[in-house]
Amino acid sequence: MTVSNVKAGPRNEAGISAVLGILKQAFGERFQTGQSFREQHAHTATGLKSQLPDGVVFVESAEDVKAVVKVCAEHRVPLVPFGTGSSLEGQVNAPSGGISVDFTRMNRILAVNAEDLDCTVEPGVTREQLNEYLRDTGLFFPIDPGANASIGGMASTRASGTNAVRYGTMKDNVLAVTAVLANGEEIRTGRRARKSSAGYDLTRLFVGAEGTLGALTSITLKLQGIPELIGGGVCAFPDVKSACDAVIMTIQMGIPVARIELLDDIQVRACNAYSGLTLPEKPTLFLEFHGTADTVPLQADQFRDIAMEFGAEDFVWTSDPVERAKLWKARHNAYWASRALAPQLDGFSTDACVPISRLAECVAETQADILEHGLLAPIVGHAGDGNFHTLLLYDGKDPKEVEKVEAFVERLVHRAIAMDGTCTGEHGVGQGKAAYMDEEVGPALDTMRAIKTALDPQNIFNPGKIFPQD
Amino acid sequence: MTVSNVKAGPRNEAGISAVLGILKQAFGERFQTGQSFREQHAHTATGLKSQLPDGVVFVESAEDVKAVVKVCAEHRVPLVPFGTGSSLEGQVNAPSGGISVDFTRMNRILAVNAEDLDCTVEPGVTREQLNEYLRDTGLFFPIDPGANASIGGMASTRASGTNAVRYGTMKDNVLAVTAVLANGEEIRTGRRARKSSAGYDLTRLFVGAEGTLGALTSITLKLQGIPELIGGGVCAFPDVKSACDAVIMTIQMGIPVARIELLDDIQVRACNAYSGLTLPEKPTLFLEFHGTADTVPLQADQFRDIAMEFGAEDFVWTSDPVERAKLWKARHNAYWASRALAPQLDGFSTDACVPISRLAECVAETQADILEHGLLAPIVGHAGDGNFHTLLLYDGKDPKEVEKVEAFVERLVHRAIAMDGTCTGEHGVGQGKAAYMDEEVGPALDTMRAIKTALDPQNIFNPGKIFPQD
Repeated sequence: MTVSNVKAGPRNEAGISAVLGILKQAFGERFQTGQSFREQHAHTATGLKSQLPDGVVFVESAEDVKAVVKVCAEHRVPLVPFGTGSSLEGQVNAPSGGISVDFTRMNRILAVNAEDLDCTVEPGVTREQLNEYLRDTGLFFPIDPGANASIGGMASTRASGTNAVRYGTMKDNVLAVTAVLANGEEIRTGRRARKSSAGYDLTRLFVGAEGTLGALTSITLKLQGIPELIGGGVCAFPDVKSACDAVIMTIQMGIPVARIELLDDIQVRACNAYSGLTLPEKPTLFLEFHGTADTVPLQADQFRDIAMEFGAEDFVWTSDPVERAKLWKARHNAYWASRALAPQLDGFSTDACVPISRLAECVAETQADILEHGLLAPIVGHAGDGNFHTLLLYDGKDPKEVEKVEAFVERLVHRAIAMDGTCTGEHGVGQGKAAYMDEEVGPALDTMRAIKTALDPQNIFNPGKIFPQD
Repeated sequence: MTVSNVKAGPRNEAGISAVLGILKQAFGERFQTGQSFREQHAHTATGLKSQLPDGVVFVESAEDVKAVVKVCAEHRVPLVPFGTGSSLEGQVNAPSGGISVDFTRMNRILAVNAEDLDCTVEPGVTREQLNEYLRDTGLFFPIDPGANASIGGMASTRASGTNAVRYGTMKDNVLAVTAVLANGEEIRTGRRARKSSAGYDLTRLFVGAEGTLGALTSITLKLQGIPELIGGGVCAFPDVKSACDAVIMTIQMGIPVARIELLDDIQVRACNAYSGLTLPEKPTLFLEFHGTADTVPLQADQFRDIAMEFGAEDFVWTSDPVERAKLWKARHNAYWASRALAPQLDGFSTDACVPISRLAECVAETQADILEHGLLAPIVGHAGDGNFHTLLLYDGKDPKEVEKVEAFVERLVHRAIAMDGTCTGEHGVGQGKAAYMDEEVGPALDTMRAIKTALDPQNIFNPGKIFPQD
């Protein structure tokens, strides 16, 4: 029951009714209970059915957040933080109803400290907005999960994406957050110093907590200098194993690739059709190198040697921004290209991540599984991290197809976990992966539960997420 | 009261007496209560007075750890994990007595996964032991806090050291741990996949927890490829500000220095005398570059340009291992060189860390403070991280000197915190910095307390550390 549907939770009708009245009074036009607002705030971007909140409040400041938390806490009503709604595991659903807290108006960039390579933003700032703002400073924020997600949402799901192999995930790029807790108090989890040993790492606790421990009100991020030169290229391999072996060798040699993405033959075919390209329809790596006029060619040459050793015919790269953009267009449009293979069907993305030594094996077994069960599912992966997505295309109205997809996802999750990997490399747990938490983390799940209970004893923050429901 | 002395905590005499009997029975020769064993296990490597445990148990397996935890939990008796005793803030003291759990016999390297650049070790493995073991694999573990500390201790204090600027701190290099909790259960906090979004980041919670949440039983670490070439050099500047400005520029330009260490003029003088060198007695940066025959010279040249811009006369570097070792010898011996300035005196190391834009200012103000108060205190810093140590030399038997040192430390801590920095960049809180936690983390301290209480309700794990005592 992880692909299409999740159970509703218990509803505190009296509390919800009271909170609706209070918030209407307090927030006026900034509190909405209309059907379309509620639907927009429970759109899960996957096959998971929407579970609507009872109202949507548009917060504009930390004071607003505190006010909403206090009202919800007093009446034991859930609140679900909402950024842009691009999460993929039902994180913005409201299985027990309650209030969606929309952060899109908390989108101020509070400070940019260029000398320290950091900035502080409100949770509703999107990554594109931030990079647009930073452009003149010569700095950029590197994490790119694909969607133009909010920084608050990215922090909350521990997002990563195409260039995590070089720059890390949100865990590595958040220096500190401020958050409003269930008691209505706001805490700051760290300072702007690059490192600290001052007690428990609350920053990393809130990163990836999916809004279940508190509501973020600001995020302090590390920034990077915009590289002097960016090189990009595409390289086809005879089979997936060769491509993965080239990735392993690249990582082991310490070549600081900024992106190294794997597309399987079906994905390349989809991309050719969608983006008007003529790439060989073989397993292909897309690469990007960040550096200087001296170092980018060195990196590219080192990679070419490795690629040839593993059966690539050639490796063409370019530092011309227009050409590079054209080459990478296929990768950037991979999701829509896949959907275009069968526009009438629904799409569901998996998110397994394994140690890179097991990547070739995991991808090959998954491809065989897809073939054996007659599924349509292109594969695209952040190969340098051992993380790959299969985009399953299926008819969500046909229970048999849904069942087939469910069974496939379950096999894939077991396969990844058996290889010392995870069911979720970057999408988070939400509702979709909660059923696998016990298998993956074992008794550590009780430790997580103890922390949740200690910080949010009434379970008002995003209930029904991360932890398996009865 | 942070430099010389800390309060004793309450003692549970009946419980301690019961536990001593049970552990003697269960562990025989592996449980010791003699004075010399107890003294060795409470040596704090600072001015803080020793607070002895009542007994020392030498554990050899996770099963041993579970057994000890169960006995201690049943009788509400503290247990204090002990690695090599090189911590600097009284982390191994036993203010309420109890059992020191010595991990030196849990020193097996359990697995090295060369293809995945990771390994799993028991907590008692030291970093030198690990690197010795890894040598033939072409890999190394980069974190170097100076002392030959245990990996368990390094994880627990969130250690870093000279090359954190390139490779990060323990927070960035621990993939997962196993830990025995207060309930006697062992959990595993993560898997070997490079990234994961599977729930709360318990790995980072145990890294830096100083043994207050549980006892580590294994640590899975990231490894790095040994660089093809290492270059090292030394560069004198006219003043501290120029040296710091060169560091800021180096970091901003994205030059991937592996080490960039600041020594002030007094420290250089001490090093010259101690190591038989003739370095100009000016503020000096020690650098190391990791890369290839192509990239190391590029990095060194880029740095030279920056250094000249900020008033350095020249920058000499070498890739010859013997010459490099000689140059770096001064840095490696800095602590002992400082102590040799006045061998009859005690030494106390501070650990402030500020955003690098504030480093020059913080160091300059601290130097002025040292001068104004007639203190002897060379400065050495991990400049790329904004972290610096002053080694105060004072007579620990003279209450007036102790008071003077205390007052200086307090001013330094306030200064660092006021600059959005921390009182502890890498040494941890222990007992020595507990008094500053409230000032530094504010209401987040209550959140830390709530987590501590949730995971260790009887406060048996390393009590009296991190949290300020009444």
